[in-house]
Amino acid sequence: MLFKVEMTVKLPVDMPQEIADDVKRREKAYSQELQSAGKWRHLWRIAGSYANVSIFDVESNAELHDILFALPLYPYMDIRVDALCRHPSSIHNDDK
Amino acid sequence: MLFKVEMTVKLPVDMPQEIADDVKRREKAYSQELQSAGKWRHLWRIAGSYANVSIFDVESNAELHDILFALPLYPYMDIRVDALCRHPSSIHNDDK
Amino acid sequence: MLFKVEMTVKLPVDMPQEIADDVKRREKAYSQELQSAGKWRHLWRIAGSYANVSIFDVESNAELHDILFALPLYPYMDIRVDALCRHPSSIHNDDK
Amino acid sequence: MLFKVEMTVKLPVDMPQEIADDVKRREKAYSQELQSAGKWRHLWRIAGSYANVSIFDVESNAELHDILFALPLYPYMDIRVDALCRHPSSIHNDDK
Amino acid sequence: MLFKVEMTVKLPVDMPQEIADDVKRREKAYSQELQSAGKWRHLWRIAGSYANVSIFDVESNAELHDILFALPLYPYMDIRVDALCRHPSSIHNDDK
Amino acid sequence: MLFKVEMTVKLPVDMPQEIADDVKRREKAYSQELQSAGKWRHLWRIAGSYANVSIFDVESNAELHDILFALPLYPYMDIRVDALCRHPSSIHNDDK
Amino acid sequence: MLFKVEMTVKLPVDMPQEIADDVKRREKAYSQELQSAGKWRHLWRIAGSYANVSIFDVESNAELHDILFALPLYPYMDIRVDALCRHPSSIHNDDK
Amino acid sequence: MLFKVEMTVKLPVDMPQEIADDVKRREKAYSQELQSAGKWRHLWRIAGSYANVSIFDVESNAELHDILFALPLYPYMDIRVDALCRHPSSIHNDDK
Amino acid sequence: MLFKVEMTVKLPVDMPQEIADDVKRREKAYSQELQSAGKWRHLWRIAGSYANVSIFDVESNAELHDILFALPLYPYMDIRVDALCRHPSSIHNDDK
Amino acid sequence: MLFKVEMTVKLPVDMPQEIADDVKRREKAYSQELQSAGKWRHLWRIAGSYANVSIFDVESNAELHDILFALPLYPYMDIRVDALCRHPSSIHNDDK
Repeated sequence: MLFKVEMTVKLPVDMPQEIADDVKRREKAYSQELQSAGKWRHLWRIAGSYANVSIFDVESNAELHDILFALPLYPYMDIRVDALCRHPSSIHNDDK
Repeated sequence: MLFKVEMTVKLPVDMPQEIADDVKRREKAYSQELQSAGKWRHLWRIAGSYANVSIFDVESNAELHDILFALPLYPYMDIRVDALCRHPSSIHNDDK
Repeated sequence: MLFKVEMTVKLPVDMPQEIADDVKRREKAYSQELQSAGKWRHLWRIAGSYANVSIFDVESNAELHDILFALPLYPYMDIRVDALCRHPSSIHNDDK
Repeated sequence: MLFKVEMTVKLPVDMPQEIADDVKRREKAYSQELQSAGKWRHLWRIAGSYANVSIFDVESNAELHDILFALPLYPYMDIRVDALCRHPSSIHNDDK
Repeated sequence: MLFKVEMTVKLPVDMPQEIADDVKRREKAYSQELQSAGKWRHLWRIAGSYANVSIFDVESNAELHDILFALPLYPYMDIRVDALCRHPSSIHNDDK
Repeated sequence: MLFKVEMTVKLPVDMPQEIADDVKRREKAYSQELQSAGKWRHLWRIAGSYANVSIFDVESNAELHDILFALPLYPYMDIRVDALCRHPSSIHNDDK
Repeated sequence: MLFKVEMTVKLPVDMPQEIADDVKRREKAYSQELQSAGKWRHLWRIAGSYANVSIFDVESNAELHDILFALPLYPYMDIRVDALCRHPSSIHNDDK
Repeated sequence: MLFKVEMTVKLPVDMPQEIADDVKRREKAYSQELQSAGKWRHLWRIAGSYANVSIFDVESNAELHDILFALPLYPYMDIRVDALCRHPSSIHNDDK
Repeated sequence: MLFKVEMTVKLPVDMPQEIADDVKRREKAYSQELQSAGKWRHLWRIAGSYANVSIFDVESNAELHDILFALPLYPYMDIRVDALCRHPSSIHNDDK
Repeated sequence: MLFKVEMTVKLPVDMPQEIADDVKRREKAYSQELQSAGKWRHLWRIAGSYANVSIFDVESNAELHDILFALPLYPYMDIRVDALCRHPSSIHNDDK
């Protein structure tokens, strides 16, 4: 089941650089693990923004929630979730 | 180059059924042609809405505009465009 | 899997009474069928509005979409969907 | 009498962990007590958000207010209240 | 129990004058009946707008809904409802 | 002359308790004095919010402004003002 | 007593020209009469919009309402009203 | 050339009183100088808000910008600018 | 003096094709005349929208207003105007 | 390929002056370098705001993103990006 999730990050401007680097490093590792597992199907940067558009492929709402709630950058994010489903005109087999 | 485009359709409630069916038929054909050509890379339905989230892969802003402006359902749409680019954490080779 | 769906209805003010009554009658039958089947788990009226708050219990986003898209009043509705999941503090066994 | 209440929590990012844990622990105890008493009828998590959708069953607006104002997390919450009532199409006996 | 209700009226500009006068006449009679009964406790015009701010004194959400849904001007209204309760600083005995 | 004023209070979460108690005490005294003088005609709590809906009865805009600007909680408030006047359907003699 | 009133006009695009001209002619006469009487103290056009910013000098909210409600273009207007009062830094004697 | 400028001031709640008084004193002197020079044509307080509505009479956009950017309170302001011009119905000779 | 003007066009969906073509033809001629005269300095299409971003170079607010009010498509437009001025970092001589 | 980018800057009010001057100096140098290279085609100040409207001429979304993300003032900015393309009525050869 697919979900579109848009994440906008706003780090405190007075956050020490090494703390920022650390949380970004953990975020990258966490997201790449999920991408490899096929959970985090697509991850794009919105040009000009510290924000991304992602497509998640999960078994349930609960699984989606647990994945997002564990994002290292979660406390600094505004998140918007849209449930997706197959479009009747789609020719992509796996765009369920 | 990738763009996220969200299209929300609002057909006039008094539109005759055969006219609605015709414009939807032309819209489906047009979109499947572009999907086959690789221009319309992803097309998902937002659950509960007469709206879609699409990812277009085009050479320029102008090409994107021409594609969207020629949508048969265009006059009945609200459209939002976001320019995308590769996310530094993405492991997907072709998510340029 | 649970979804919160808020539906606000805006019928054209010049809609003939008998047509309005008919679509409402079909809407009521359709919703009561789904309530009996356990799909439409809760249905409340928002006081003062021609709107409802509903909780749907479905297997997937797609099933939710198909249910909503088939609502007789759908063309006259603004719909907002929120994916729900179990709250860590909930004591209700079936509030999955 | 039923009310829908949506609560979105935003804890200060620099709140010490033990203080955060304490206020969450008190919040959980408080909410479970009310759930057991039948006042807090439903409590769901909105997938992806530090927010919940709740249905309260109270005798009056005043009782609702007192319950909400005493939430340990109240100072960190945005709250939206909608008065609900029975929907003419509802088949659920106790969805008054 | 008190509720604040703000009603903004938007009549179709092409509504025949006699129909407009009739619905307004029925609205006035209906509201004055409720005011006399003590249900419609306050009714003020917002200066410059075809809108009012009203305070209703009812036994339940359901009663409020039934009163509002029966307003002759209802189909032409945007309505916002806020549940009120006694303010701890109020010295007015009956501002329950 | 009547004005509707909606006041939403947002105290800094790190405000020391005794300072908060003091400013609330002064606010209560100030508002009860104005209520007794008939200037602050109605004061209701919006259920679930640290906010109130008030009706002021003053001689001019300037008098309203001076009253509001002197509220001890003013620096922590979002305020919305609507000028009111008698509604043609009102039966309340003093709802000028 | 001064009020700022912003009026945005949206005439139906299918309104016959002679009807539009007539209502504009009556609007102009009505406004110039009020300007001469000193009630409509300032009237400016917002560049690029079919909208104006006006300053009214009236005795009460009720007088303002009656003036605005009688505008020939009223049914085609969105109106926003702000109560004004003398600014402590103003050097203009009559900017009460 | 006239511009409407609305300025809303939000001073930090923890700003020391003497610093606040100083910046307000400089703001008042600066604005009265411009009022005397005829640049700051009108200055009204919005009743209930720490905000003003002003009309500036300047030779160009650049002059307006320089005036506003030099406001002592500028860093604490939200500013909205609307270009104005003579209204065809205005009878005021100098409301250019 | 420069102004940024964003124009979004919404033609009635039931407008006869020949009328739409005529008003677009007149709009194009009008805009190209102004572009040649140097008044309409830049005109770009917002990709995906029936909207443009334009930069006008005029002597006054009034001139801008007269130009915009005379646009053949004006009745079908939402227009937003922002006054511009030279940026202190600009190296472009004529970006006054 | 052209993009419109609107940047609004909000520096922390308690930022030491020398740090603010330094970041502004680096911002100016960075932007003038890009202007000289033809990437930053236009840069205008929005009158009254600490904001600019810019037109960028880049090869791709990615190049735009990298340019913006490297702005020294980026952490203090709200940024809005709109993809532009040639308008069918434009007579400017290089307004591609």
